[in-house]
Amino acid sequence: MNIAVAQSGGPTCAINASLIGVFRQALRTPAIDAVFGSINGIEGIIKDELIDLKLVIKTNEDMELLRQTPSTVLGSCRYKLPRTEEDSAVYEKILACFERHRIEAFFYIGGNDSMDTVVKLSAYLKEKGSSVKVIGIPKTIDNDLPVTDHTPGFGSAAKYVAATVQEIIRDSSVYSIQSVTIVEIMGRHAGWLTASACVLRANDELAPHLIYLPEKKFSVEQFVEDVRAMMAKHKAVVVAVSEGVEIPEENCRSGVVDNFGHEYLSGVGKALENIVRREIGCKVRSIELNVMQRCSSHICSKTDIDEAELIGAKGVEAALAGETGKTMVFKRLSDIPYVVKVESAPAELVANKEKFFPPEWINDQGNDVTEAAFRYFLPLIQGEVNIAMRNGMPLHFKLR
Amino acid sequence: MNIAVAQSGGPTCAINASLIGVFRQALRTPAIDAVFGSINGIEGIIKDELIDLKLVIKTNEDMELLRQTPSTVLGSCRYKLPRTEEDSAVYEKILACFERHRIEAFFYIGGNDSMDTVVKLSAYLKEKGSSVKVIGIPKTIDNDLPVTDHTPGFGSAAKYVAATVQEIIRDSSVYSIQSVTIVEIMGRHAGWLTASACVLRANDELAPHLIYLPEKKFSVEQFVEDVRAMMAKHKAVVVAVSEGVEIPEENCRSGVVDNFGHEYLSGVGKALENIVRREIGCKVRSIELNVMQRCSSHICSKTDIDEAELIGAKGVEAALAGETGKTMVFKRLSDIPYVVKVESAPAELVANKEKFFPPEWINDQGNDVTEAAFRYFLPLIQGEVNIAMRNGMPLHFKLR
Repeated sequence: MNIAVAQSGGPTCAINASLIGVFRQALRTPAIDAVFGSINGIEGIIKDELIDLKLVIKTNEDMELLRQTPSTVLGSCRYKLPRTEEDSAVYEKILACFERHRIEAFFYIGGNDSMDTVVKLSAYLKEKGSSVKVIGIPKTIDNDLPVTDHTPGFGSAAKYVAATVQEIIRDSSVYSIQSVTIVEIMGRHAGWLTASACVLRANDELAPHLIYLPEKKFSVEQFVEDVRAMMAKHKAVVVAVSEGVEIPEENCRSGVVDNFGHEYLSGVGKALENIVRREIGCKVRSIELNVMQRCSSHICSKTDIDEAELIGAKGVEAALAGETGKTMVFKRLSDIPYVVKVESAPAELVANKEKFFPPEWINDQGNDVTEAAFRYFLPLIQGEVNIAMRNGMPLHFKLR
Repeated sequence: MNIAVAQSGGPTCAINASLIGVFRQALRTPAIDAVFGSINGIEGIIKDELIDLKLVIKTNEDMELLRQTPSTVLGSCRYKLPRTEEDSAVYEKILACFERHRIEAFFYIGGNDSMDTVVKLSAYLKEKGSSVKVIGIPKTIDNDLPVTDHTPGFGSAAKYVAATVQEIIRDSSVYSIQSVTIVEIMGRHAGWLTASACVLRANDELAPHLIYLPEKKFSVEQFVEDVRAMMAKHKAVVVAVSEGVEIPEENCRSGVVDNFGHEYLSGVGKALENIVRREIGCKVRSIELNVMQRCSSHICSKTDIDEAELIGAKGVEAALAGETGKTMVFKRLSDIPYVVKVESAPAELVANKEKFFPPEWINDQGNDVTEAAFRYFLPLIQGEVNIAMRNGMPLHFKLR
């Protein structure tokens, strides 16, 4: 039998490690012959654009290098399957591709949209009497998938955020005048990644002094009061804010209008910078961590990369045990010592759903997170991967 | 005898390594008793805010940790000394501080403004018959100081830019649709740091496909033509642009106006993003590397950190040999193998001056740099410092 694997959604540092998990487990499984990689997610299956991964991942060095290469080596897509009632042609193409290449199991590494594909495709195949198994392998830096304790890719993003915010704290503290630094962190609806900056307390950092998440209603008045209170105690105030925080009064727009009269959508960091400048008038700067949060493999979390590989491997085991329409998930057994196990769950519990940051982990004032959040996050950023370097730069695996 | 050291100007990853260079050389020199650290640059001398560094840097571990901690552990300032004719009181305070603490040599780690302080202060002291020596130790991520081959702090910034742009290349290449990614890199007047992204060619990266520097006049029309030409060859085009590039037609403002009618000063990256969206209409994103360029010690260049320490140590040797009013500089003897030596130069050759990126290292079209530039940059990012980690995050040295 052969198997196929594809990657979908936004890039992370761990999505190639999950691919290696699938690949390496296949190598360990005598029943599996070829491992096909589908180019650009499910689109590669639909268009029959597959590559035989054994022809391109040839050595242990290749595997280790790909494991630590950010983004998706097979490319990605944002394609969502139609409902079978609407359009069955695309499903027929997928089934034809599976049959043509004797593919008995398909592994889809992605977020909640990709789990929707797992649900729809596995239901279609069952209905058609096909024995092909479909298993979802979760990934997202947003950490917003339900059921699973956390999501591969998140730990590395959190480690990057922690290291970078710590360096920004050093950078912002050099002058004798008072200053406010706003760091805008990814997460359109869920505040997990922004909240994770609290891990800096493990290294005795007092900053970020204020943390704002989309799960709590934001008040400009309260924000200005919070900043003033922190300025009374600290020379250089550092604020972590999630890109998903909505500022009703500002509408994240600050009234800025372009030539065509369209309002200019500045980020929330820039909006808060403007508020501080206007209301407090001190030195202020905003910093967007941007895509670096999801692709900075040079400072990835070993825990995250190892777990990403493990959950990929466990997905292969699940498929061979006959499971389908499932998403692999982590179940945490203990914070200290940190212990997780991998299970499978029905993909419909994950598909199209978001898991928000727990309200009970936000303090009453809505400007910080609790000790329980700190204990949750800290294990996820532990350990460093020995990054392969060439010419003073990280070496990446490339398909070419 | 005692000595004093201070740090000035914008933070870098190497400025504390130069402090350690001064400190460690002092430990090796029996004639030197105390090493005073001046808080917030020359302001600490003026206000007599000094700390005895031997009381806070106590172990080899402390030295190694401070060597790899970004920013300025003693704080910084933007203070420029007045001319002696205008205000001699401040000079009298400095001299009084030196005499009070038996300080016989003062080392000022900073950029071209700080070298102005070295020039003025050494001239004043000579005139007053004081034997105190004043030596400048260069630093700036901008690499724009004359005389010296390059500047401590630059190599680490260039290594961060290379690693990060490489990760952005991976991130931007995942989808099947065409895209343009604009990366805005620091350098208000000089394009060194932006140009250094060319080192990625050593790792077979084709991107950044286009490089724009402030040293070459920018044309929007030519830019759009350049991007279109690259899009014909590459699915995901990556552009490196210096923040100092002036866009006459756009004025870096894109006509965006705030509530008060003030034009909104977006960065050049955002301006180019707007141009691509308007003129080409493809998927486009701009990314500002922001202060991370100057403080990301977790991926600093060992060559840079070692050289920063060396040039600090050599400054102490120069002062003890009787030199004053000098700036320490690197002279490159060879690219391959890379060999530099440290010399001293009259500080007035460096003070208040800028060294621009050589026009002969820019290609005729003004959208790339030459092989000679590549050979210049590559040695500066070599080697990795073994970063001390605690709780999954880099450990920083703090005064407290």
